[in-house]
Amino acid sequence: MKYHHPDDSLMLHTDLYQINMAKTYWQDGIHERKTVFDLYFRKLPFKNGYAIFAGLEKAIHFLNEFRFTDSDLKYLREELEYDSDFIDYLADMRFTGTVRSMREGEIVFNNEPIMQIEAPLAEAQLIETALLNIINYQTLIATKASRIREIVGDGAALEFGTRRAQEMDAALWGTRAAYIGGFDATSNVRAGKLFGMPVAGTHAHSLVQSYKDDYTAFKKYAESHYNCVFLVDTYDTLRSGVPAAIKVAKEMGDRIKFEGIRLDSGDMAFLSKEARKMLDEAGFHDTKIVASSDLDEYTIFHLKAQGAKIDSWGVGTKLITAYDQPALGAVYKIVAIQDEHGNWQDTIKISGNAEKVTTPGRKKVYRIMNRLNHKSEGDYITLWDESPQEEKKLKMFHPVHTFISKFVTDFEAKNLLHDIFVDGEMVYELPELEQIKSYTCESLNVLWDEYRRMLNPEEYPVDLSQKCWDNKMKNIAAVREKIDQLKK
Amino acid sequence: MKYHHPDDSLMLHTDLYQINMAKTYWQDGIHERKTVFDLYFRKLPFKNGYAIFAGLEKAIHFLNEFRFTDSDLKYLREELEYDSDFIDYLADMRFTGTVRSMREGEIVFNNEPIMQIEAPLAEAQLIETALLNIINYQTLIATKASRIREIVGDGAALEFGTRRAQEMDAALWGTRAAYIGGFDATSNVRAGKLFGMPVAGTHAHSLVQSYKDDYTAFKKYAESHYNCVFLVDTYDTLRSGVPAAIKVAKEMGDRIKFEGIRLDSGDMAFLSKEARKMLDEAGFHDTKIVASSDLDEYTIFHLKAQGAKIDSWGVGTKLITAYDQPALGAVYKIVAIQDEHGNWQDTIKISGNAEKVTTPGRKKVYRIMNRLNHKSEGDYITLWDESPQEEKKLKMFHPVHTFISKFVTDFEAKNLLHDIFVDGEMVYELPELEQIKSYTCESLNVLWDEYRRMLNPEEYPVDLSQKCWDNKMKNIAAVREKIDQLKK
Repeated sequence: MKYHHPDDSLMLHTDLYQINMAKTYWQDGIHERKTVFDLYFRKLPFKNGYAIFAGLEKAIHFLNEFRFTDSDLKYLREELEYDSDFIDYLADMRFTGTVRSMREGEIVFNNEPIMQIEAPLAEAQLIETALLNIINYQTLIATKASRIREIVGDGAALEFGTRRAQEMDAALWGTRAAYIGGFDATSNVRAGKLFGMPVAGTHAHSLVQSYKDDYTAFKKYAESHYNCVFLVDTYDTLRSGVPAAIKVAKEMGDRIKFEGIRLDSGDMAFLSKEARKMLDEAGFHDTKIVASSDLDEYTIFHLKAQGAKIDSWGVGTKLITAYDQPALGAVYKIVAIQDEHGNWQDTIKISGNAEKVTTPGRKKVYRIMNRLNHKSEGDYITLWDESPQEEKKLKMFHPVHTFISKFVTDFEAKNLLHDIFVDGEMVYELPELEQIKSYTCESLNVLWDEYRRMLNPEEYPVDLSQKCWDNKMKNIAAVREKIDQLKK
Repeated sequence: MKYHHPDDSLMLHTDLYQINMAKTYWQDGIHERKTVFDLYFRKLPFKNGYAIFAGLEKAIHFLNEFRFTDSDLKYLREELEYDSDFIDYLADMRFTGTVRSMREGEIVFNNEPIMQIEAPLAEAQLIETALLNIINYQTLIATKASRIREIVGDGAALEFGTRRAQEMDAALWGTRAAYIGGFDATSNVRAGKLFGMPVAGTHAHSLVQSYKDDYTAFKKYAESHYNCVFLVDTYDTLRSGVPAAIKVAKEMGDRIKFEGIRLDSGDMAFLSKEARKMLDEAGFHDTKIVASSDLDEYTIFHLKAQGAKIDSWGVGTKLITAYDQPALGAVYKIVAIQDEHGNWQDTIKISGNAEKVTTPGRKKVYRIMNRLNHKSEGDYITLWDESPQEEKKLKMFHPVHTFISKFVTDFEAKNLLHDIFVDGEMVYELPELEQIKSYTCESLNVLWDEYRRMLNPEEYPVDLSQKCWDNKMKNIAAVREKIDQLKK
């Protein structure tokens, strides 16, 4: 195909303006100035009480491969007509920055840096778009999956959405994020191959249609597979599908494991209860009922409330596209830049909307753990040189409604941003996927149930230290003053 | 990274059940039976009056590469424990089927085959998931883009969504689909490189923040770029941003082209009108105003209704994720299979929901063009051996409400499904992207305006021929009878 370049890279997977800004910085000679960019989102998705951070591994992979290839440079030179001096500069460019990040699987919240990039200005700019593209989607899906996991409880949660995903990367990385968020398996075989995830699935309606009736299809399937889950709704679930499944299971005896039946249409509450009775009467008490049909946390919640006899939940479209909110709005904002003498200078972006005003300065993020009950008191953002652990009595106050405050005493201030790259060198050991998944459970356990419920959760505190807040106010005042002078 | 295999392919980008069904067919010896699968969707997205078909080129690419690689086979053998005989069969498998498809850029409708796969059963099954994954997303985005294009009118429409896209493939292929649907350019540089699309973008807030004020930032940008669009809302649009842009443009004179200013926050109607006045008063009548801030067809429609002075529209999240309906539900259903003697047998899937009942048989799809006004009278689905062009008076009737009918006389029956592969050989010449884009305009022109409006469009007729309808009824009756016998 004409668009295949053997050396194609992800370096041009960026917005054109990043390259144009890099050119300005390079031409003006400030491209090497150290800057700090915070990556964060302003609102939790799905009105959930928390989010699950995912995407770090792919982000690291992207940074490790940071290097313009010949075909990238050729395109920039020949088609976009950048000067050859600038092209030469890009050709030699490597990522030399420092990256701090929350752990993949960490519970994260709005308005706190989940990644922090400290890098030469041009480099920091050139990685923005890809990082956001990766983190926004994977965090969104891990969070959606976690919401569903909370409702599914002890049942199995299976990710079945590949055909409805937004193109192939979403199917692949989305199902990995769903696994991190608490799902048990995927139907996507490539995800199984690449990530070592468990895969699940037996057959579709087309099998039954190819053999013309349920019985023949199930029998043929059973003769070629030990583990059997029969899809019973091709023609008529209770009259044809379930009886045929039971008949085949009896005929095959020990030669198969009659793992389950799958319902894919109709009234799942009614059908599952009737099917359960039929299975039980036939002696198949351990045979599970799998449901799959446009499910999400809401339909699952209500089916369970109606006493549906469903053991496993196959979730597709609503999870893999995060149907009720298909984008997370994480942003990447410059908060500090070194001046010509190497001194850090804060930067700020002002907005009429209070929540869009950035929090200036190099910062740290702590989780304030209560030592008595091992639950979190909230997250606490400080300027770089503060040491909250040294405080006897930590004052935490709401960053917008500042009169809402509390004092915390017997606490551990847990640093949430870990070094991933230091001056371009990767210093982080990538955890296994299973470790990330376990870490999600672990990190969720520090939350009171009130933050974890599906509907109207409590607002988790993400507070600024007094110094950080004062610094923000100082910066806002300085900008306002400047603008007022322009007005005159 | 551990999940990188040098020979990784998209063959495992499928649901596990496809491979399990292939195994049953192979073991039973029916894997080579010819089948026909129709790919279609049941509902138009966004309550739109039409959809724009996109994804064909990538689907062709996938089919051309259809071949299990060593690492694919190793995973299936060692991790999923398929028998080595079955693995050997997969290793030798190539795509030998026939594919018929609508042209990319074609206007398409619900309940008509947009692709038709005639292939050995196992092959047809193994390509389902990837085809749906590709076509569902790209068609969704091309359609969303077309809706926005219809509202934007003569203005420029720019796709800016990469950072909010659902992972990387969505950003890349989504912006290509948006271009097919009528967008003018993308911010994604890689899309420019790979697809030859126009790219657009100048700078972000971080440029202004790096230089501390609008004036310095714009000046530095202007000194390093000829074409300038200044982003004016970092601190204060009307007090600081626009005056600074004008000042720089005056100072630079002919050394730059002051193409535009960009508004990214605040009240776009008010700000654009005020900014227009300021630009005009300064003599910059040709300088455009670009807006970008959570736009979609609805906000653009209302901004235009309020007389906003916006020339170019940068659309991100709402387009690239199809925010108001992030999935198209195209399905892939078996409609015919050859028996052991090589005779075609119809297959059907029954459902309590009338729209979910499949239309059996090998079929053709025609667009019935009125020869007098060159508009379409509707699409017309026939069984394989019918020749609607030979009818003097074609009866078209609604496939659900059959009493709604009309007769068409002076018409041309245009065959919509083109041969792409014949017996595994690609026989189709891929059009250039620009040709696809032009074809979208051309194909939209056959629609009356009533089908094209954003809100409550007329329902376009997609009708079955009498024979096709009778055949469907016959198949339904046969299944019902079979089920009734089971009941006794």
